Amino acid sequence: MQNFDFSNPVRIVFGRGVIPELGPAAAKAGRKALLVYGGGSIKKNGVYEALTRALRENGVAFAEHSGVKPNPVLSHVRAGVAKARAEGCDMIIAAGGGSVIDESKAIAAGAKYGGDVWDFFCGKAEVESALPLFTALTIPATGSEMNSGCVVTNEETRQKYSAGGPALFPRVSALDPEATMTLPREQSAYGAVDAIAHIIENYFTTSDADNAVTDELVHAVARSVIASTRRIMKDPKDYNARASMMWSATLALNGLANCGYGGGGFINHAIEHSLSAFYDIPHGAGLAIVIPAWAGKYLERGGRARLENFGRGVFGEATAEGTIKAMEAFFREVGAPVRLGELKIPAADIPKVAANAAATVKLWGMEMQQPEIEEILRAAL
Amino acid sequence: MQNFDFSNPVRIVFGRGVIPELGPAAAKAGRKALLVYGGGSIKKNGVYEALTRALRENGVAFAEHSGVKPNPVLSHVRAGVAKARAEGCDMIIAAGGGSVIDESKAIAAGAKYGGDVWDFFCGKAEVESALPLFTALTIPATGSEMNSGCVVTNEETRQKYSAGGPALFPRVSALDPEATMTLPREQSAYGAVDAIAHIIENYFTTSDADNAVTDELVHAVARSVIASTRRIMKDPKDYNARASMMWSATLALNGLANCGYGGGGFINHAIEHSLSAFYDIPHGAGLAIVIPAWAGKYLERGGRARLENFGRGVFGEATAEGTIKAMEAFFREVGAPVRLGELKIPAADIPKVAANAAATVKLWGMEMQQPEIEEILRAAL
Repeated sequence: MQNFDFSNPVRIVFGRGVIPELGPAAAKAGRKALLVYGGGSIKKNGVYEALTRALRENGVAFAEHSGVKPNPVLSHVRAGVAKARAEGCDMIIAAGGGSVIDESKAIAAGAKYGGDVWDFFCGKAEVESALPLFTALTIPATGSEMNSGCVVTNEETRQKYSAGGPALFPRVSALDPEATMTLPREQSAYGAVDAIAHIIENYFTTSDADNAVTDELVHAVARSVIASTRRIMKDPKDYNARASMMWSATLALNGLANCGYGGGGFINHAIEHSLSAFYDIPHGAGLAIVIPAWAGKYLERGGRARLENFGRGVFGEATAEGTIKAMEAFFREVGAPVRLGELKIPAADIPKVAANAAATVKLWGMEMQQPEIEEILRAAL
Repeated sequence: MQNFDFSNPVRIVFGRGVIPELGPAAAKAGRKALLVYGGGSIKKNGVYEALTRALRENGVAFAEHSGVKPNPVLSHVRAGVAKARAEGCDMIIAAGGGSVIDESKAIAAGAKYGGDVWDFFCGKAEVESALPLFTALTIPATGSEMNSGCVVTNEETRQKYSAGGPALFPRVSALDPEATMTLPREQSAYGAVDAIAHIIENYFTTSDADNAVTDELVHAVARSVIASTRRIMKDPKDYNARASMMWSATLALNGLANCGYGGGGFINHAIEHSLSAFYDIPHGAGLAIVIPAWAGKYLERGGRARLENFGRGVFGEATAEGTIKAMEAFFREVGAPVRLGELKIPAADIPKVAANAAATVKLWGMEMQQPEIEEILRAAL
């Protein structure tokens, strides 16, 4: 077990009807918010109404910045930064899924920074400060509601990069499972794949596998994601399954699942970010394609014991091969694609995608070269 | 799954050689610390030296308040409050196990309060503020290093009561598993029992058992405590087992294991506190006696499904009866007593102990009357 430094100051208010609690919390942070959201689903599921009423009742004015895309793009982030400044906002409130929260983090950092916000993503600047951030989560998937990272796509350069820093932890995140009841089946499925991806990345890339406590925690969250998602697929209105899934996805990327692994690396994410930067596919769909192919290569290169450990803890599977099959079967079961062909991504594109991914891998400090990434992508054909 | 509100701002620095990190952290909080410790084991295991050197190197002066007892007593807390004031300390640094940290919390609160510190424990006052607190943990057991509660015994009235509040979260806790390598076998065992007790209390007393994610988390921590303790009993110098146990015990009572259970109650703790208030026995020893007896009554009164769930998740046991036996067998295996007679506590004392426990039960807002507590204690004879 390796040394670690853990702290996570985010306050989570969780459950039925909790969104109005953001009102008094926001009032402590200032008088005017930039309310960031996406395509407007929050106007159908009641989140917009509950949130804006709470803000008004607590004397918090707000400007709106809507239209955040599923893979949030730099141009829209820049527009948000400009609006936050022009409107004199002293906080950001994100209402939506991980993309909305990620864009909100970028805006929160950008609004306090003299240069261009992309500097944080390409490694030119560190996030030193940010406007206070509050979130009302509507899609359990990315964990962004309880961590300090964010991912934005530069649509000109096809770079899907990440930034982070302690200033980007939300102050309060409100998680109402009822807001997820009307999610399209596909989004529920992709959220599950994303949560599984988060929970396994460091588990499988750790340099120190003698870590009973974090291993058990990883198995626990993975089991809960799988069991809850199966219930959701049967009955989308199953509140307790929605609740369990929502909290599981948060726990999958709030730092706990990495304690003692000594770093590791988000290799599946690096490869997937390249796919979604080129094809604008859902992040979860890309991950469901990459993970089984990556796991096959991982098995070839010494990953047998870890795959067996994961299989025993999560699927009741004794073999590494069975573990990979069980992961892929779960992705298929929830309706995610598991091969590039299912998204009509041709073999001829592989070198281009792999070259782009290799740049991310390097930026994130991991070690994998383009030829190896190409191999993984070919295994996913 | 019930609504919940979770936040835990404690920064954990974990691993080999981390204690000096308290130096720069303390320097941010002020210039003079009250260093609180127990019988002096920290002078043998290197913690005192590492800590005081780090304080000196970072310009933090300190006064010492040693001699904290395993069940910390009010008179010693009051002396600590007086010393913190007399010495003009602007922070408290605890170096030791849960008792040292609990006494330190009481001193931190008392030093900022006009009245008597016992007011916080008997419900006369709320903790509104406290001196900043830092901890160097040497015994994995109570979880006090990452929560905001503390327990103190009023030795005049035989009341072992608790207090708490957000001001009592430590700022930084340093957890070096090497500091636990020289723990007596007994203390390792009792720490494991205590951690198991923390992880099960709300699990078994919840009003809402449809909570896959927290159930899985509870099973994960319990499995890790058991597996790690078995390794420690075989080889006390097994670093990874010590590390896994240390982090498990912290996770068992940092708030995560209660999310969504809707309160519940610490019934085994309430009964045990009465035992250790009268007989000054180790808390873990008392718990190992109370838990199996309590679980038997719980089974009689509708607890079958929960016990089965716990058994399946932790022991691979299908029946409730088997689960209780497995818990008791684990306590015996590590050398804890499991009957009152083993500590020479006579049947004649039961009404006195039960009456005292009933007062704690009432103070903590739970529902159990003296006759029922007597039944549990008789089952533990």
